[in-house]
Amino acid sequence: MPTAPPAEILSIGSEILLGEITDTNAAFLAAELARLGFSLGTVRQVPDDRGVIAAAFTEARARCALIVATGGLGPTHDDLTREGLADALGEVASLDPGLEAQLHARMSNMPAINLRQAMLVRSAEAIANPIGSAPGWWVDRDDVLVVLMPGVPSEMHRMWDEQVVPRLASRFSVAPLRSRTLKTFGIGESAAAERLGSLLSSSDPEAGIYARDDGVHVRFSTRGDPAALETPMARARELLGDDVYGTDDETLPHVAQLALASRGVGTLATHETGTDGALMAILSALPLTADAAAFVGGGLSAEPRVEADALLRVTLLPEDGHGRSVVEVSLSGVGGFEAHRIRIHGSGPQRLRRAAFASLDIVRRA
Amino acid sequence: MPTAPPAEILSIGSEILLGEITDTNAAFLAAELARLGFSLGTVRQVPDDRGVIAAAFTEARARCALIVATGGLGPTHDDLTREGLADALGEVASLDPGLEAQLHARMSNMPAINLRQAMLVRSAEAIANPIGSAPGWWVDRDDVLVVLMPGVPSEMHRMWDEQVVPRLASRFSVAPLRSRTLKTFGIGESAAAERLGSLLSSSDPEAGIYARDDGVHVRFSTRGDPAALETPMARARELLGDDVYGTDDETLPHVAQLALASRGVGTLATHETGTDGALMAILSALPLTADAAAFVGGGLSAEPRVEADALLRVTLLPEDGHGRSVVEVSLSGVGGFEAHRIRIHGSGPQRLRRAAFASLDIVRRA
Repeated sequence: MPTAPPAEILSIGSEILLGEITDTNAAFLAAELARLGFSLGTVRQVPDDRGVIAAAFTEARARCALIVATGGLGPTHDDLTREGLADALGEVASLDPGLEAQLHARMSNMPAINLRQAMLVRSAEAIANPIGSAPGWWVDRDDVLVVLMPGVPSEMHRMWDEQVVPRLASRFSVAPLRSRTLKTFGIGESAAAERLGSLLSSSDPEAGIYARDDGVHVRFSTRGDPAALETPMARARELLGDDVYGTDDETLPHVAQLALASRGVGTLATHETGTDGALMAILSALPLTADAAAFVGGGLSAEPRVEADALLRVTLLPEDGHGRSVVEVSLSGVGGFEAHRIRIHGSGPQRLRRAAFASLDIVRRA
Repeated sequence: MPTAPPAEILSIGSEILLGEITDTNAAFLAAELARLGFSLGTVRQVPDDRGVIAAAFTEARARCALIVATGGLGPTHDDLTREGLADALGEVASLDPGLEAQLHARMSNMPAINLRQAMLVRSAEAIANPIGSAPGWWVDRDDVLVVLMPGVPSEMHRMWDEQVVPRLASRFSVAPLRSRTLKTFGIGESAAAERLGSLLSSSDPEAGIYARDDGVHVRFSTRGDPAALETPMARARELLGDDVYGTDDETLPHVAQLALASRGVGTLATHETGTDGALMAILSALPLTADAAAFVGGGLSAEPRVEADALLRVTLLPEDGHGRSVVEVSLSGVGGFEAHRIRIHGSGPQRLRRAAFASLDIVRRA
């Protein structure tokens, strides 16, 4: 059995505590730590307050083997993560000549306040930040590892991927989770679970089933040999049949656009009513690939006004008061396509997106 | 001076610690607590583990006057918030006949497991949940108030607005923060700050300046008389001049669509290149109002294909390697409009959205 060292995440920044930003760093790191095999005991957000930060590090160091902290490494007076951790360790930060030289090399006229970003305590090694001025800290003392990273998501993601993950893999005996996903549309979560039966009760590979806007996803995962995922994937595909539209990174709009291209459709336009442009938003966000029908535009008004090889029309009728709505779908420019009426469940923005995905599922099946 | 009682937020759910969902409840509640005048010391996320939940409540009760917790109130074996809080209080939960009757009234054939949602400890009062089966708990003991709410955002928001906020206002001496926002486009954050000068250093009303995709926003806020916000708002409007496009809930696309309607434009189509449909996504998400030009569709292909009274064309040229890009904007169907080239800053999705907003700002000014 792989070990699962206990870990904690600490996000530092008063803007989080004021509700001005949502802490997406913590969600990213939580998923990464789970994937690497760490057991996450707590995520905590604290303000830019040196005493509170120090107390948070002290408490976390008493109960876990790895602390991943983000934020508070900027150059200004309210960036206090370095000082807070130094207090918790009983160490004093001092200017590191190597880091100072790197900062000068990075900024031709470095403001004096940036010198704070060249400070280190004795137990800390710097982690290079190729796209920002704040280096991270790697502090391995008393069997507890503390990693400090910048709060700017792009800087944090790159430092995490390129430098922290490889070092964690040497420091801990981690077993990354590998997973494969089968994606379906047109079947509900409980009906899918019924068809899959005992496949879902396996513990390794572990099976999970998730209802998303773009359908029900079935995921198999293991910390052992990833080849073990192939048998349950194949069996699930058999059991779910035509409702399966793809695996892993495949998306329903792309599968639908590939299906259209295979029938000779070069360009696709949409015309939608009642969906607030949900279909347009989904299709325009998708990267174009040369082998798929290109989305060239969409209309929202009473009459469609966009020209293309094929026109997909979607009309979402009002919800019935019990969370059910009917979607009418038709496709012109493609021979032999019949109009469809589909029932969807949901409310709010989810309802609009589900209507859009339902229309793409009809196209995919055509 | 209004008091600022120390508060903490506790979000309970293993799916948060696995990174499967982002904890948006905490961001909502953090903003609400700040608005109400509470000083938030910590936000913490813990898994569905009775011992960890109990310890988290015990620690938080030792250091604050208000704990707002969400999640873990469902009917299944892994919903352990009630038990964890009971352990922290040294109380034992028992079936409340009133809650049991309400659950039976709500569900004709109530599964036995739902009885767990009718449990209360002696210090707890139930908080009604009009749209779900999990009541909240209001536990006021030893000068610390603990509020438990469901983790489902729609249920939590409604319980918070309708029941928790009014009760908090009677329990604590809270002074809600009132604020007004002035929105600009076409001026950078530092240039705006320079023009505003000493207006930004006022402490009551407090001033803040924020760079967003839809421009630089200036916010004035106070816990005192909201009439005091009007003088700095008027002065800021004078200083920022033409760059101001709206206040508070007004949006740049809506202001642009109103400007078009005032020039006799009934319908607007877009044609965008290089923006991955960012303009289309922004315009289609906006609720239509009868006094604004209606967005009827958009095109992404080489040639525009949508018919409307006016056609807004936006071309985003490649980034120059230093985060700068040029946007070309033209508008046909409106007399006297000149083509524009605007420079924007940013990368990734932000760059695409800024290009779209820049084109709407040109339309607004036309």
